[in-house]
Amino acid sequence: MARFIKKHKHEIGLSPYDLTFRGDKKIENVLLRIIDFDSLNLNEEIIKNVSDINKFKNSDTVTWLNIDGLHNINIIKELAKVFNLDSLILADVMNTETRPKIQEYENCIYISVKMLQLNEKSGIISIENLSLILTKSALITFQEKKGDVFEPVRERIRTSKKRIRNSNIDYLTFALLDVVIDNYIHILSVLGEKIEDIEDNFIMNPSKNVVEKINFYKRELNFIRKNIGPTKEMLLALSKIESELINDSSSIFFKELQDNLKQVLESSESYREILSDQLNIYHSSMSTKLNDTMMFLTVFSVIFIPLTFIAGVYGTNFDVLPELHYKYSYFIMLGLMAIIAIGMLLYFKRKKWL
Amino acid sequence: MARFIKKHKHEIGLSPYDLTFRGDKKIENVLLRIIDFDSLNLNEEIIKNVSDINKFKNSDTVTWLNIDGLHNINIIKELAKVFNLDSLILADVMNTETRPKIQEYENCIYISVKMLQLNEKSGIISIENLSLILTKSALITFQEKKGDVFEPVRERIRTSKKRIRNSNIDYLTFALLDVVIDNYIHILSVLGEKIEDIEDNFIMNPSKNVVEKINFYKRELNFIRKNIGPTKEMLLALSKIESELINDSSSIFFKELQDNLKQVLESSESYREILSDQLNIYHSSMSTKLNDTMMFLTVFSVIFIPLTFIAGVYGTNFDVLPELHYKYSYFIMLGLMAIIAIGMLLYFKRKKWL
Amino acid sequence: MARFIKKHKHEIGLSPYDLTFRGDKKIENVLLRIIDFDSLNLNEEIIKNVSDINKFKNSDTVTWLNIDGLHNINIIKELAKVFNLDSLILADVMNTETRPKIQEYENCIYISVKMLQLNEKSGIISIENLSLILTKSALITFQEKKGDVFEPVRERIRTSKKRIRNSNIDYLTFALLDVVIDNYIHILSVLGEKIEDIEDNFIMNPSKNVVEKINFYKRELNFIRKNIGPTKEMLLALSKIESELINDSSSIFFKELQDNLKQVLESSESYREILSDQLNIYHSSMSTKLNDTMMFLTVFSVIFIPLTFIAGVYGTNFDVLPELHYKYSYFIMLGLMAIIAIGMLLYFKRKKWL
Amino acid sequence: MARFIKKHKHEIGLSPYDLTFRGDKKIENVLLRIIDFDSLNLNEEIIKNVSDINKFKNSDTVTWLNIDGLHNINIIKELAKVFNLDSLILADVMNTETRPKIQEYENCIYISVKMLQLNEKSGIISIENLSLILTKSALITFQEKKGDVFEPVRERIRTSKKRIRNSNIDYLTFALLDVVIDNYIHILSVLGEKIEDIEDNFIMNPSKNVVEKINFYKRELNFIRKNIGPTKEMLLALSKIESELINDSSSIFFKELQDNLKQVLESSESYREILSDQLNIYHSSMSTKLNDTMMFLTVFSVIFIPLTFIAGVYGTNFDVLPELHYKYSYFIMLGLMAIIAIGMLLYFKRKKWL
Amino acid sequence: MARFIKKHKHEIGLSPYDLTFRGDKKIENVLLRIIDFDSLNLNEEIIKNVSDINKFKNSDTVTWLNIDGLHNINIIKELAKVFNLDSLILADVMNTETRPKIQEYENCIYISVKMLQLNEKSGIISIENLSLILTKSALITFQEKKGDVFEPVRERIRTSKKRIRNSNIDYLTFALLDVVIDNYIHILSVLGEKIEDIEDNFIMNPSKNVVEKINFYKRELNFIRKNIGPTKEMLLALSKIESELINDSSSIFFKELQDNLKQVLESSESYREILSDQLNIYHSSMSTKLNDTMMFLTVFSVIFIPLTFIAGVYGTNFDVLPELHYKYSYFIMLGLMAIIAIGMLLYFKRKKWL
Repeated sequence: MARFIKKHKHEIGLSPYDLTFRGDKKIENVLLRIIDFDSLNLNEEIIKNVSDINKFKNSDTVTWLNIDGLHNINIIKELAKVFNLDSLILADVMNTETRPKIQEYENCIYISVKMLQLNEKSGIISIENLSLILTKSALITFQEKKGDVFEPVRERIRTSKKRIRNSNIDYLTFALLDVVIDNYIHILSVLGEKIEDIEDNFIMNPSKNVVEKINFYKRELNFIRKNIGPTKEMLLALSKIESELINDSSSIFFKELQDNLKQVLESSESYREILSDQLNIYHSSMSTKLNDTMMFLTVFSVIFIPLTFIAGVYGTNFDVLPELHYKYSYFIMLGLMAIIAIGMLLYFKRKKWL
Repeated sequence: MARFIKKHKHEIGLSPYDLTFRGDKKIENVLLRIIDFDSLNLNEEIIKNVSDINKFKNSDTVTWLNIDGLHNINIIKELAKVFNLDSLILADVMNTETRPKIQEYENCIYISVKMLQLNEKSGIISIENLSLILTKSALITFQEKKGDVFEPVRERIRTSKKRIRNSNIDYLTFALLDVVIDNYIHILSVLGEKIEDIEDNFIMNPSKNVVEKINFYKRELNFIRKNIGPTKEMLLALSKIESELINDSSSIFFKELQDNLKQVLESSESYREILSDQLNIYHSSMSTKLNDTMMFLTVFSVIFIPLTFIAGVYGTNFDVLPELHYKYSYFIMLGLMAIIAIGMLLYFKRKKWL
Repeated sequence: MARFIKKHKHEIGLSPYDLTFRGDKKIENVLLRIIDFDSLNLNEEIIKNVSDINKFKNSDTVTWLNIDGLHNINIIKELAKVFNLDSLILADVMNTETRPKIQEYENCIYISVKMLQLNEKSGIISIENLSLILTKSALITFQEKKGDVFEPVRERIRTSKKRIRNSNIDYLTFALLDVVIDNYIHILSVLGEKIEDIEDNFIMNPSKNVVEKINFYKRELNFIRKNIGPTKEMLLALSKIESELINDSSSIFFKELQDNLKQVLESSESYREILSDQLNIYHSSMSTKLNDTMMFLTVFSVIFIPLTFIAGVYGTNFDVLPELHYKYSYFIMLGLMAIIAIGMLLYFKRKKWL
Repeated sequence: MARFIKKHKHEIGLSPYDLTFRGDKKIENVLLRIIDFDSLNLNEEIIKNVSDINKFKNSDTVTWLNIDGLHNINIIKELAKVFNLDSLILADVMNTETRPKIQEYENCIYISVKMLQLNEKSGIISIENLSLILTKSALITFQEKKGDVFEPVRERIRTSKKRIRNSNIDYLTFALLDVVIDNYIHILSVLGEKIEDIEDNFIMNPSKNVVEKINFYKRELNFIRKNIGPTKEMLLALSKIESELINDSSSIFFKELQDNLKQVLESSESYREILSDQLNIYHSSMSTKLNDTMMFLTVFSVIFIPLTFIAGVYGTNFDVLPELHYKYSYFIMLGLMAIIAIGMLLYFKRKKWL
Repeated sequence: MARFIKKHKHEIGLSPYDLTFRGDKKIENVLLRIIDFDSLNLNEEIIKNVSDINKFKNSDTVTWLNIDGLHNINIIKELAKVFNLDSLILADVMNTETRPKIQEYENCIYISVKMLQLNEKSGIISIENLSLILTKSALITFQEKKGDVFEPVRERIRTSKKRIRNSNIDYLTFALLDVVIDNYIHILSVLGEKIEDIEDNFIMNPSKNVVEKINFYKRELNFIRKNIGPTKEMLLALSKIESELINDSSSIFFKELQDNLKQVLESSESYREILSDQLNIYHSSMSTKLNDTMMFLTVFSVIFIPLTFIAGVYGTNFDVLPELHYKYSYFIMLGLMAIIAIGMLLYFKRKKWL
């Protein structure tokens, strides 16, 4: 299965307004969860019908509508009506194979970003597309499935009476993006530990699956970089947007996000280099080991070659072969062989071939 | 045949206005097909004479003239007259070896882009030059041969009464470019699957044509990148053009095109790296296999060397060789040989040389 | 001989106004050829004295003075007087080792560019410096020797009554630069064919000079890139010059030149990569071949090792060696040897070592 | 332990205002040291309570408060109150895993930079985060532990009555950053000497830990580059800041800093290349040595092969084997063997195989 | 000794105003030489005291003060007084380890650049820092030791009455920088010739020090690039300076300098690639040679293996071994051996293993 890019033949040339879910269905039922708050009140609710949102939408509070699951077109269409969204946005929301990007519309800002998930056992990283739509009255987030990295933000909303409860939708957006990027850092630091462990392991206990491991992590890093690299452009565009939806004073937070992202990308680059180095070290240590062995075996063989030759000479059946008839010939031959063998051993030792 | 750049000696220094077809003739007869539509009416017709176009041209409808085949200079010249085109454009249209580019003229915009075609059996990618000329009254597209990727767009024009039927020439242009780039994505995703399959295959069933396959796909990716890379510049220039022919509200579509193209280029880069990695893995797995075999054979030989030497010693014909005359000497020798062989086997086993 | 950069000790620190010919003399006599034309008249003449140019210079026609050979300082100095040129330009003209560049002066524009010449037999590419000086009254071109790539342009001037005969000096400049770059494309496409042939050849008929060939073409591409790479900057500067000598409407032609040059540079990059790939394929195919052979020889040796050992054992001279005295021992031994040999052959076959 | 990036799961999604110490505690007690000076007076004091700072803060003197240790949140909070600092700054100060950066606030400038420390014995480079906060009334510096590279600056403040004593907070900032970067240069020059020594050593006295050493220094350089690379951006941003806290005339000092930093980065790049070259030289010298040895051993074996064969022939027991019965056969055979051996030796010598 | 970067511990954190000579003392006595000229007069003098300069300084002539040797702080300080120079400049002048740079001051421009010196015998390139200070009244140049590349400029001042004698200080500066860069070109062309010779030599007469030579030149090129690379930035900054000290009409000369420098850097890049290619060619030619030899030796051994086996079989002592008793058995065996040997030779020949 092509992991980096996907398009089926029947998808070519679909209208950009075409509302088809282009992705893998990862959840059974669509779940709509609302968190509505201001500095004093907090309301957390799971709604059944899209229309239920109207009671939150028009108040002065910050409304965060989170939607898990994208395959139900009717819900998406209703949302478009309630929030008066351009249908191009919703087509984008439903296409989970896009690059991270940002798009400004008349009445909203559309942000798409990738969430990474690390299966800590297998070390495999999976990916989920996250879409955020900032409107004047609410922040809408779309996820492909249940389970996300936003729990810390919800917890901060619930418990703290401070900053986040006093802030606006743009600050909430920042908090969510922050948690997404924090998660990148966490995943990379987990990967990083595993990568830095590889070397110690293969020096202690060399085994052939090191190469596989290294290549596995290389691909994982490649995958991460490909999916989060464009986020850099997105954040840059975000910081340049001049919209009433984004407060000027937020710029400092977006700079923070950019710094964190840069750290992620630079670290992933560093780990790639470490992996390359490790591969080289492994190969050179393997080849050193092989060479040493071959050398040993060759030297071993070479020592016997003149000895076998001597035995061969005295195995000939010549009528006249004077040495054969001396009483101590055999012992002299053995002695000679011993001297030759020891001489060669010493010579090879001195030459450091053994 | 030079696949990346072509120029015959007699073509050097031709006037840029010179109307010669510079390419391979890929179709017998030139085919002119018109689709003329507005939100209410739709007219699809194949015309014989260029002059037939006049009846569509001056109406308020969107007129799309598609021309398959570029070798008939007379038709091209007539077109120039009907649409009052600079002859430089037509010279460009007829030169199929140019880079993707865009050029603004007084009364039209000229766009050239590459269409890729994947032969799904052989995996060979062929290329066709597509020229688009946006004029106030019509969109003219030139293809080298019959058969194209535009069918989905035609189908949308025929069936849907919505967006595309209500739009103008610039939106049609966007739809065509979109389908061309969608096709890039599709081809790359097909290639991608094949590339990701290679590794599984050669681990299961190693064979020597893996290297050839990898190099084949490397060249294909190289070919793709070279032909679609400059499209990036073209789209950038397109998004910056200030012309009455292009509506300001279209800019969002061109951004979409740019995003898709970036995805294509980044994925092709990712696949190139995967291929390089695969090549390294293959070579290292081959060399490991070879080394293991050579090691085995060497160890095998080495075990017999002292045994053969011992046999040689007792094959000598010395008059005095006491061991020969003991009754069990032969059996002792065999036993000794067995001990030596087993000892060496154990030693090599412990050293992990076997 | 240093092919990429040249400076003799005595040349260090010469005044930039110093009029010395710094290059290799490639022609015996300096040749001055004038083509003077407008839409109606055409005058082609070889002049002896520089002063003869005055009769053409002041007319309204386009005057193209081409000079083959740079070593005669007197002619150069006379030219400077006739056209009132800054002596810095002439010093530049006479230094054939400069990078392609453009320089605007008060009354003229100086352009320097490299012409390539491919010896189709040896495949060696030689280089010649071409200087163009655009003045209000004439275009002066300086070449190091006779024979150039301008014949198609001359032919177009002679035969066609159209565009080129109606145009001005800037268009003539464009036509000459176009023919120079067209020639780059041609040379690269010839090289390209040869490069793409290499692979087929060495798979059919491997020989050791492939590496030499590949390295030869690598150096040729390196040489081309080094000499024509800076032309890109030159064209960019040219397109930005605001001078009354260059008509605004010419900008489209310079864009054409830039596109062609980009194609040349990108193709040369592609061919470099192909050569690198070929080198890798060659080395890997050579090493595969070598490994196969060594494996075969090793396996062959290994089969005889136990057989020779057995023969050795029965060659020992023990008094008591029961097997020696059975009637069929010899044949049993031969049979045993055959069984061992066949067994090993089958084993190695199954292991795919043979 | 992931050396390049760190984030624990419980740290994900913390509010950016969250004041938690994110780093390793490297010191027991927090130490607050004040140096307060103008051209005439100098006051150096270690204070116990943060409030003690008030007496220095409001004077016209330059006040430098240096804090060693970041884990005591109360002290940090008190500081925020005294200097009226945005709590975001303090969160940044306490997160020691950030990239070098600069951030302008309403009433202060926050600078973060890495200090390197070279353990001259082990050659291991450790890192410490340094935060500087420029306010109108004082410069506050935060270090993770005791012991720093600022002693030379303190000494200059104590002894010289010149420039530094007459300057303002911005100049002090410059002096501190200068000493940090000077320290980079020093560390790199120490590393550089060690790196340049490697080559001489392994040519004299080849040993297998060269590869480990080279890889060790490669990782050190990688580590340095990753940690000080972003300082470049920081300095650029610093030089562009338009703040009343920074005097225009300081720009020349920041340019100096940038130049020094560039030198560091370029040198680290040069050393990386040297290490790569050294690795190649080592591998090629090792492989040459191995090849020479294998060649010698092979040639040695090959010489005995025909000799052993001859002995084998005359060891056969044919009834009729005429050579066996001549009187000098044995000696002729020995002579023949000597001739063959010497002949082969000479041949191999001429072929330069020995 | 660290060749690329140097800083001793005691130098860390010195005030930028600190006037200490940081470099190697390369000359015994400081030498002050004045050349004072205008179009009519020329005055060349070696002065003892700095104050002697006053008589030249205030005239309308161009005054060039050249100082060889930097270790005498008193002279430097006096100069500062005479020309009213910022002490930061003099600190820069005395630090010979800086990167090439340019700095504009209120009353002067400071330029620092590297002079290269090639020891033509050993091929070792040494470096010297050159500082130029342009003031309104004089050009002051500082060199580390006697002997420079400026003789051609002095000669031009002495002999020619033209351009240089009529020009101002900025033109003199240009002439000196020109001669420095011309010298880069000369050194690189000398290196270039040696590099291009390497290949011919090692094909004719392969020896193992080729790798050392190649690595030597690689390091030399690395050294050159590191030291003159930043000159590019310096020249760019110089061309952008708007100062009354530099005439607008000089810009054309600085463009010339930039072009020459680019040529140097591009050529050094080309030579680096050539060296890399040469290394690859050398290694591949060495490995081909080794493989051919090993193949030959292996084939030689393999031919004897079955022969020795046959001899072994007939060396066995079976009571019943019929072949032993036929009259021609021995000769048949010899014939059989010959046939086997020749057969194998032919087989190996056909397989191209010999």
